[in-house]
Amino acid sequence: MNFKIIIRVLGFLLIIEGIAILLALLVSAIYNEHDLNAFIISAGINLSIGGLIVLTTKNTNKNIGKREGFIIVTLVWVVFSFFGCLPFILSGSIPNFTNAFFETMSGFTTTGSSILSDIEALPHGILFWRSIIQWLGGMGIIVLSLAILPVFGIGGMQLFVAEVPGPTPDKISPRISQTAKTLWVIYLGFTITETILLWIGGMTVFDAICHSFTTMATGGFSTKQASIAYWSSPFIQYVIIVFMFFAGTNFTLSYLALKGRFKSVFKDEEFKYYGLFIIGFTLIIFIGLLVSTQLNAEPAFRDAFFQVVSIITTTGYATADYLKWSPILTILLFSLFFFGGSAGSTGGGIKIMRIVLLLKNSYYEMRRMLHPNAVIPVKFNKHSVDSKIITNVLAFFMLYITIFGLSTIIFTIIEPDVESAMGAVATSLGNIGPGLGNVGPAENFLHIRPFGKWFLSFLMLLGRLELFTVLILFSPAFWKR
Amino acid sequence: MNFKIIIRVLGFLLIIEGIAILLALLVSAIYNEHDLNAFIISAGINLSIGGLIVLTTKNTNKNIGKREGFIIVTLVWVVFSFFGCLPFILSGSIPNFTNAFFETMSGFTTTGSSILSDIEALPHGILFWRSIIQWLGGMGIIVLSLAILPVFGIGGMQLFVAEVPGPTPDKISPRISQTAKTLWVIYLGFTITETILLWIGGMTVFDAICHSFTTMATGGFSTKQASIAYWSSPFIQYVIIVFMFFAGTNFTLSYLALKGRFKSVFKDEEFKYYGLFIIGFTLIIFIGLLVSTQLNAEPAFRDAFFQVVSIITTTGYATADYLKWSPILTILLFSLFFFGGSAGSTGGGIKIMRIVLLLKNSYYEMRRMLHPNAVIPVKFNKHSVDSKIITNVLAFFMLYITIFGLSTIIFTIIEPDVESAMGAVATSLGNIGPGLGNVGPAENFLHIRPFGKWFLSFLMLLGRLELFTVLILFSPAFWKR
Repeated sequence: MNFKIIIRVLGFLLIIEGIAILLALLVSAIYNEHDLNAFIISAGINLSIGGLIVLTTKNTNKNIGKREGFIIVTLVWVVFSFFGCLPFILSGSIPNFTNAFFETMSGFTTTGSSILSDIEALPHGILFWRSIIQWLGGMGIIVLSLAILPVFGIGGMQLFVAEVPGPTPDKISPRISQTAKTLWVIYLGFTITETILLWIGGMTVFDAICHSFTTMATGGFSTKQASIAYWSSPFIQYVIIVFMFFAGTNFTLSYLALKGRFKSVFKDEEFKYYGLFIIGFTLIIFIGLLVSTQLNAEPAFRDAFFQVVSIITTTGYATADYLKWSPILTILLFSLFFFGGSAGSTGGGIKIMRIVLLLKNSYYEMRRMLHPNAVIPVKFNKHSVDSKIITNVLAFFMLYITIFGLSTIIFTIIEPDVESAMGAVATSLGNIGPGLGNVGPAENFLHIRPFGKWFLSFLMLLGRLELFTVLILFSPAFWKR
Repeated sequence: MNFKIIIRVLGFLLIIEGIAILLALLVSAIYNEHDLNAFIISAGINLSIGGLIVLTTKNTNKNIGKREGFIIVTLVWVVFSFFGCLPFILSGSIPNFTNAFFETMSGFTTTGSSILSDIEALPHGILFWRSIIQWLGGMGIIVLSLAILPVFGIGGMQLFVAEVPGPTPDKISPRISQTAKTLWVIYLGFTITETILLWIGGMTVFDAICHSFTTMATGGFSTKQASIAYWSSPFIQYVIIVFMFFAGTNFTLSYLALKGRFKSVFKDEEFKYYGLFIIGFTLIIFIGLLVSTQLNAEPAFRDAFFQVVSIITTTGYATADYLKWSPILTILLFSLFFFGGSAGSTGGGIKIMRIVLLLKNSYYEMRRMLHPNAVIPVKFNKHSVDSKIITNVLAFFMLYITIFGLSTIIFTIIEPDVESAMGAVATSLGNIGPGLGNVGPAENFLHIRPFGKWFLSFLMLLGRLELFTVLILFSPAFWKR
C-alpha cells in the first residue's frame, strides 16, 4: 500500500476545500457578518495543512493503484467532512462537534438531512457554505461515477460509460479525465441557468444561487426552515422540479442532448424507465390527493409531482408534508426511497438502471426455466448484459437490503419508533434527506442521540460511495498481499 | 397444453382429499358431534367428483410435461383449498365462504393465520380437519421441493438434491419418487414420536395428534385460542421447539442422521447456518428479555428460544406476545420473517440456503473487484456453485422483496396501519402465521376486509410455491408455443 500517495492526494483536496471556504468567506465579507473570522481560520487551516502535505511529499509520478483508489475515495468524504465542519463550529452556528460533522457529512454526501431548527437565523456565509459543500459533493459524484467506479468494477456502472470516451480501465489517472471536465461544464451551465430562472421567479440572488447549488447536487439543503414550501410561487416550484429532474438524469445524456442527439437520449432505456416511474407515481399520488384532500387540481398535481421528483432523484426538498397524506400515499412515496436517480447523475439510492436490470433478470429467469438449455442474457439498450454485471448488481442489491434491515434493527435501540428508524436509515443510505415519523420533512435530526448521528453519517457515506467502495476496506482480502 | 392430463391428476388428488376428510369424519363420529353430516357431504363431493374425473378420463400413459407441471402444482393448492373449505362451511363453523377459503388456504400452505376468534368452541372433527390439512400441505411440500422444484429449475433447489438419489431431471414422473416415499416415512415417524412425547407431557391424545400434525408441517394451527401458551408446561414447550427445529431442517439430513451419518449432517453448510442463526437470535433476545422484563432466566430463555424457532421455521406458534416486547426485540424477531426454514424442509420463507448464498456472493463480489481477471465462484458445501444458480437465487430474492414492497403498498389501502400491513404481507408471503400490529400473535385475521383476505390467500400460495411456480403462469412466454 502506497500511503504517501494517498496523503499527497488528500493534501491536494484540502487545498481545494480551502479555496471553497474562501468563496464562503467572500459571501460573509459582502454581508459583513460575524462569521467572517470563522472562515478566515477555517480556510487557513485547510490551506496550510494541505499546502504543507503537498510541499513535503514528492510527486512520484506513479499511477494510483486500485487499492489506494478505494482508500482515497472513502477518505475524501471523511476528511472533507472533518475539515468542512470547522466553519460551523468556529462561527458558533453549530457549536457541537457531532452535530457539525453530521451536517457536513449530510452536505458532502448530498443527503440534505439537517440538525438545524432555525435555518433563517444563520448568517449568509454559513448558509452559502452549506450549499457549496453539496455542490462540491455533486461534482465529486460525477467524477466518481464516470471515472472511478467503472475502474473499481462496481455495480453495472460499466454499462452506461460505453457511450462516452471513458478513462482507461486499468489505472486511475490522477488527472480528471476530459469526460468529467465536459460534464462539469454542463453541471455548471445547469446551475447558472437555474439561478437565473429562480431569480426571475422572485428569489433573491443569494437564495437562487444556494438553491441551484443544492438542486443540481440532488442535495436538498435550503436556506429556509420550510424548504421550498417557503415560496408559494408555482413558477419557482416547477423550475426546481425541472432541474431536479435534470440532476437525476445521467449527465452524459444531457451532454448528448446539448449536442442535438435527442434520438440517443430518448432511446436510452434507463431514461425511459426513469420517466415512466416519475409519471406513474405522480399520477397515482395526484389522484390520491384529489380524492383524499380538499386541494384543487393544479396544486394537488404540483404537490405530487414535486414530492415524487424530489424523492426519486434523492434531492429531498419539500413543498408538502407527505406524512400528513393518507397512509397509502405516504408509503407509496416511501417506496421511492429505494429507487434513486439514474446512474451517472448526482442522485443516490439503488439507481434506476439497477432496478430495471434486476426486474428484467427476474422476468427472464422464468423464460430460462421454460427453456433450460437456451442462453437467455438480460438485454439493456439492445445489448446483452454480461452475467458478471448482473451478479454484481444483484450483490449490490442484496447488500443494500441487508444493510437497510440490519441498520434499522440497530437504530431501533436509539429510536424506539420503528417507522422513524426505518425512515432515518432509508433516507441516510439513499442520500435523500427527510425520513418518516419524527424525522419527517417537517422535522429535523437534532433530537437523535450522538451515537445515532454518527451511525447515520456512516450510512450516508456508505450509500454515497455505492456500498462496496467503503465495505471493501473492511474485508480481510483487501489488506492481504 | 395437455389439459386432459391436468384434469386427471387433479381428479386423483380430489380422491386423496376425500380420504383425508374421511379421517376427520371418523374423529367426528368418535366424539359424536354435530359436524358429522358436514364431513359426510364434503367427503361425498370430493370422492364423487374425483372418481368421476378419473373414470371418464383415459390413462394416456404419457409423461407430464414441464408446462403442465407448473399448472398442476398451482392448481393443487387452489383446488384443495376450494374443496377443503366445505367442512368449515357445511358445519357452520365458518359460514362465510371468504373466511373459510382463507382458513383452508392458510392450512394447506402451512401458514397458520386464522380468522377464528373462539377456537375452543369448535367441534373435534373440525379442529382435526384444520390440523390434517396442514399436515397434508407439509407432505405436498416435501414432494414439491424434492421431486418437482429441481425439475422446474427453481432457486437453487438443485443444490441439496445431489445427496439423495433424485428423480430424472427432464420429465416429472407421475409416480412419487422413492425418495419422497422414504422422506414421508420420516415425516410420519417424527409426527408419531412427537405425539407420544406431547401426550406424556400432559396433552390429551387429541391435542397431541393435532399439534404434531401442525408442528411437522411448520403450520402453526393450534386447538387452543392461546396457541401453545395454553400449556405452561416447559416440557411440552421444549418438545415442540425440538420438533419445530426438525421440521425446519432439510428432511434429507434427518434421513442421513437416522442412517447414522451424523458427520454428513454437521458438515452441511445450510444446517450450520440454520443452527447459528437460531443460537444467535435466541441469545440476543434472551438477554434483551432479561434486561427489559421481570422474567427469570429459564422462562426468558424459553420465550426467546420458542419464538425464534417458531418464526425462523415459519411455524407460527406462540408462547409469548412478541409485540409486547421492547421495540428492538420485536423488530429483531420480525427480521426473521425474511429468513425461513432450510431448503427441503416444510418451512417457508426465503430459506436459509438462499440467504447464505446471497450473502456469500456479495462478499465474494469484493474479492472479484480486487481481482477482476480471476474467476471466483461462490462455494457451498465445498463445491463451486454454478453462476446460473446464483442468478436464479438472486432473481428469487429480488422478486420476493419486490412482491413484499408492492403488496404492502396495496395492502395499505385495506389496512391503513403500515406496520400491520407489513406484518400481514410478510407473514402470508413467508407462510408464517402471526404478523405485526392488529394481526399480531394475540389477534386474528377476521377483521380484514374480504378483498384483503383473498389478497393474503394469494400471497400464501405465491410464497408456498416459491413464487416462480405461480408467477410463470402469468408470463406471456409460458402460453406461447
